[in-house]
Amino acid sequence: MLIIGERINTSRKLINEGVANRDAAYIQGDVRSQVDAGADLIDVNAGSRRNSEVDDLSWLIEVIQDALPQVRLSIDSPNPDSMKAVLNQVEHPPMLNSITVERPRFEAMAPIIQLRECDVVALCIDDRGIPKSAGQALENAVRLVSDLESLGVKRERIYLDPVVQAVSANTNAALTALETIDRIRQELGGVNVVCGLSNISFGLPKRPLVNRVFLTLAMKAGLNAAIVDPLDNKLMGTLRATAVLLGQDPWCQAYTSAFREGKLET
Amino acid sequence: MLIIGERINTSRKLINEGVANRDAAYIQGDVRSQVDAGADLIDVNAGSRRNSEVDDLSWLIEVIQDALPQVRLSIDSPNPDSMKAVLNQVEHPPMLNSITVERPRFEAMAPIIQLRECDVVALCIDDRGIPKSAGQALENAVRLVSDLESLGVKRERIYLDPVVQAVSANTNAALTALETIDRIRQELGGVNVVCGLSNISFGLPKRPLVNRVFLTLAMKAGLNAAIVDPLDNKLMGTLRATAVLLGQDPWCQAYTSAFREGKLET
Repeated sequence: MLIIGERINTSRKLINEGVANRDAAYIQGDVRSQVDAGADLIDVNAGSRRNSEVDDLSWLIEVIQDALPQVRLSIDSPNPDSMKAVLNQVEHPPMLNSITVERPRFEAMAPIIQLRECDVVALCIDDRGIPKSAGQALENAVRLVSDLESLGVKRERIYLDPVVQAVSANTNAALTALETIDRIRQELGGVNVVCGLSNISFGLPKRPLVNRVFLTLAMKAGLNAAIVDPLDNKLMGTLRATAVLLGQDPWCQAYTSAFREGKLET
Repeated sequence: MLIIGERINTSRKLINEGVANRDAAYIQGDVRSQVDAGADLIDVNAGSRRNSEVDDLSWLIEVIQDALPQVRLSIDSPNPDSMKAVLNQVEHPPMLNSITVERPRFEAMAPIIQLRECDVVALCIDDRGIPKSAGQALENAVRLVSDLESLGVKRERIYLDPVVQAVSANTNAALTALETIDRIRQELGGVNVVCGLSNISFGLPKRPLVNRVFLTLAMKAGLNAAIVDPLDNKLMGTLRATAVLLGQDPWCQAYTSAFREGKLET
């Protein structure tokens, strides 16, 4: 299970202040805590600071890599030009978050993806919006894989996101997402599946509970990467317990280590 | 999802004292709280009081039915003679917990099952013990259904329990149980699947966390009944969130009601 830490996002108040004040120690401390908690990659998003996004991303990448030279980064931006501007500053092969089937977005991202080897998060969204059925999502998945492969992206570098609707709006939203994940894994061997967890619980009380349960179900269906807050001990506890039950944690080693380190809050 | 409340068991200290002191108000209060929390049936077990089991079961059934005449009971005993002695005292069709493939146990229970219409919990255990594969568990399931049907028990009254091993002893224990549940539902249409949750986490820290995650996975595989403590708000929260995500709670009605009643602890 690949864990992508989502905390370095300027839509979070304290991160925004850290970026605005160029508080390198604060940002570095946050990233270190994510890595200690199990993050394999750190997602970096300054999209809320539209007027200074490139400068902010560039500064973030610099201070994070200064303190943690081994860390892998995911560049998260709605703006292909911003991604392009910072791409070569990233030390290790970056993850680009994200691309969709939508033609303008795909065409703007295509040349950037070809600039260097990178992982790509690809959302199964087309011009009609969030897919209404597993069939439509899978159609988008097939198209994304085919288009990305034709750009030279290897399958194992593709992270498909089925894009989940809120279950409060559509009773079958989770079942549709689970079927999509399962079919992607069956029909597109070698690709990864990633998922944003929080859409599913929109409009419901106790959203973190619903998100945790959905994570368990999605992992069983074949999810092998997740963009999460690694400091959320309840979510991470659920993730580790699920890995144990799915036979992904031989001898329960990661689970019992997390327990000994006090990271298994329940 | 059928919820069988497990609290009236004399292996619990306070219940044992309540039974020993014939404290009807205490027992009735506990049962009422289980029903309020969502229990559909109340399991009654006095097996730890071997010398007085029949008297104790009989008293329990009387005081519970006195206070809550509508409640359905599950008679839980390793001793067929004890079950037989109290069977006709139960107002509504009882659940008998439990029978196995093991010949002496099956043959001792067979005449009791025929005495009146009842639900039957049937464990997929044979003379070799807990099944080592989904295939062996399914073989036992097929045999139990066939033998019970030949005694006149309708399929919809059979509750098969796959019998789970500890994941700390066998990395594939949960996967085997999930495959068994799935195959029972596919190949033995009409039967129910019930499961004791706690074996799975034996030997691990933070067992309730593992039990909750297993409940979610088992419900996805087709579990439609569970023997649980309905006052465990975290477990019940997981159960209700899982039902929402599996499309079993239209408009999230049960989930949001539980929230409004303060029953969705996370």
